[in-house]
Amino acid sequence: MKKNAFYAQSGGVTAVINATASALILEARKHKDKIGKVYAGKNGILGALREELIDTSKESLSSIKALENRPGGVFGSCRFKLQDIEKDIDQYKRLIEVFKAHNIGYFFYNGGNDSADTALKVSKISQELNYELTCIAIPKTVDNDLVITDCCPGFGSAAKYIATSTLEGSLDVQSMSESSTKVFILEVMGRHAGWMAASSILAKNKDQNAPHIILLPEVTFNQKNFLDEIKKNIKSDGYCVVVVSEGVKNARGKFLAESNTKDAFGHTQLGGVAPYISSLVSDKLKLKNHWAVADYLQRSARHIASKTDFDQAKAVGSFAVRYALEGMNGTMPVIKRLNTKKYKWKIEPAKLTKIANLEKKMPKSFITKNGFSITKKGVEYLQPLIEGEAAIQFKNGLPQLRELKLELVKKKLSSWKS
Amino acid sequence: MKKNAFYAQSGGVTAVINATASALILEARKHKDKIGKVYAGKNGILGALREELIDTSKESLSSIKALENRPGGVFGSCRFKLQDIEKDIDQYKRLIEVFKAHNIGYFFYNGGNDSADTALKVSKISQELNYELTCIAIPKTVDNDLVITDCCPGFGSAAKYIATSTLEGSLDVQSMSESSTKVFILEVMGRHAGWMAASSILAKNKDQNAPHIILLPEVTFNQKNFLDEIKKNIKSDGYCVVVVSEGVKNARGKFLAESNTKDAFGHTQLGGVAPYISSLVSDKLKLKNHWAVADYLQRSARHIASKTDFDQAKAVGSFAVRYALEGMNGTMPVIKRLNTKKYKWKIEPAKLTKIANLEKKMPKSFITKNGFSITKKGVEYLQPLIEGEAAIQFKNGLPQLRELKLELVKKKLSSWKS
Repeated sequence: MKKNAFYAQSGGVTAVINATASALILEARKHKDKIGKVYAGKNGILGALREELIDTSKESLSSIKALENRPGGVFGSCRFKLQDIEKDIDQYKRLIEVFKAHNIGYFFYNGGNDSADTALKVSKISQELNYELTCIAIPKTVDNDLVITDCCPGFGSAAKYIATSTLEGSLDVQSMSESSTKVFILEVMGRHAGWMAASSILAKNKDQNAPHIILLPEVTFNQKNFLDEIKKNIKSDGYCVVVVSEGVKNARGKFLAESNTKDAFGHTQLGGVAPYISSLVSDKLKLKNHWAVADYLQRSARHIASKTDFDQAKAVGSFAVRYALEGMNGTMPVIKRLNTKKYKWKIEPAKLTKIANLEKKMPKSFITKNGFSITKKGVEYLQPLIEGEAAIQFKNGLPQLRELKLELVKKKLSSWKS
Repeated sequence: MKKNAFYAQSGGVTAVINATASALILEARKHKDKIGKVYAGKNGILGALREELIDTSKESLSSIKALENRPGGVFGSCRFKLQDIEKDIDQYKRLIEVFKAHNIGYFFYNGGNDSADTALKVSKISQELNYELTCIAIPKTVDNDLVITDCCPGFGSAAKYIATSTLEGSLDVQSMSESSTKVFILEVMGRHAGWMAASSILAKNKDQNAPHIILLPEVTFNQKNFLDEIKKNIKSDGYCVVVVSEGVKNARGKFLAESNTKDAFGHTQLGGVAPYISSLVSDKLKLKNHWAVADYLQRSARHIASKTDFDQAKAVGSFAVRYALEGMNGTMPVIKRLNTKKYKWKIEPAKLTKIANLEKKMPKSFITKNGFSITKKGVEYLQPLIEGEAAIQFKNGLPQLRELKLELVKKKLSSWKS
């Protein structure tokens, strides 16, 4: 009997995760002989547990095509990790019960290393429970921290946003530096790995030295060296651009962002490493500075998405379907770099057992000796990932969005008690 | 004898101030019979005082044309206000001395209401000193706070950036809101007037209620009402997007951004109203939230500039030259709106005496009764200003920049002692 598919988005969203969804649904529609409907989980895996399944077959072809241009996760994502099997087998049983009720034979989970782990567990439990299910994890994370794959869909677009913002902000502070602001600080994401901060290096060129300083989570923050480096750059260039990863830690292993503890009312400060760096520059160097925090903007900026990233996001979506049809249970379609200078890549399968729960940090060879910049090798890795523009349509001056119907499938089971 | 022109950029730069410079230089080149060279002040008016004049005649036509796509102020800007004439007549005498030495008969000052005042003063003093000089101020400010002109070049592009970022960030938080972040806070510029925060309203449409709350400097912050409004929106939509102007004040007339006073090390916090709002939402409502601070990114984002704004920035540049040639001393080319529904505008001259040092706040009729949003009338005003895209070229995945030579004219005078 022809089986339906279940697709869910997991964790933080990206500018191109919907491009993956779009490609996956379009690919599935090409194989109507083998795949029935594609159900999307409303708010990710929670949608499966709650039996809240969005019937994507109700959406027109043009709506699904247009979905590739919409940032965020259109079906809703979630930060919800399934328990360990030993702790709560009932969660898994519920999943399988819902899959069974809706004749689901394919499980696509679009997320990071957590999600790869979940897909792997679901794959195992379905075998134990004797339920035939092909589980495919699809890579997605702006953090670029999945192993095996050369890069992660979502990262290239965030990197392009960050490099563009660094370039534009640098031109601004440079203009002002003679008599006003001398230091510009841009905070970007990256709790454990500095890939995003590193991508700002691409703004540097023969005419512009900015960003002068990149602070990475991989390098312990040394206040004296940092302030000396600013002074050095102010002396040579008259201004200094600092890109700082939210995950930078001091020698005691504490996030700098947590160093700001309480405000005047005793409220806990939520952090922000940029204001911390700003205080340092103001207090210790008496230099006027400005700071920006990119936060969600860097991972939702579809309007400046990288064409390379966009193409890869779509490719992993369609390959996920092909792997599923080939019965490659417990697999992730990953990106393999074939050539760097004349950038070429392909998709190939990787075992989830080799990916789940592992984290890829920046290699040491990508970080300059002083710890404040990125080597030529790092630049060579990063450069192709931001290349090309994935143009969008504008309407009334804003990115045009096409709304989906998001119709839920009729429930067949009693409600889920977590 | 044919006179040269002096052009200077003043104050905070914008995504399109170089488009104004480009258009002005190109227009001047069309009138070689009447205008000699265009000298640009290195770092604004300081360039005149220091006799650091950039000779734009050394730049190729294609370089000057390409300049329209470069954010920031390519000749350098400054935050330097000329003293009152009574206090320091010598500054003005020095200016005239430099102008005389370099046969400058036209003074173009590209800035906000401060600069209009300076241009006016220079115009008066040149008459007193019997030096023939035509002074034209050219509008530029992301703050949109100049009087008489319908809008200010630079604002429309910042507004488009803010509306786009609000839209994209809203889709992100909406995706996450079921099990994670429920509130997204975006801080934008606007110390005294809320034009930039207001422009986020354009992200709202029939399918999206975000931004749910806009905090304007024109409206005194009331913590209880604000928190109630968040609760209301969370209840109805499941998430809430707040756009906050840096200039929001509490009932005691104090900037919220200054309410965060000292961190754990006794450093003065540089502010940031977004982290303040974030603390409130965390502490009082226990809602997970994210915050972003756009800072320089909003005024340098040439990659998402508004075509309307771009066209207006160029128009004021070329009209400045035409007005100068007509001898319209003490004038600013301003934008007059001819039609809103089918947006039409033209440039017309306005007297600097009616513009200098005045500030235009948002009219009350643009702000909704509850103080948290923008009326239909406000939307109608704002909408055309973000329309159209002023596409740029990309190279290696980033906005392509063309460097200028920026050759300085040989000095003829002894150095300036301020």
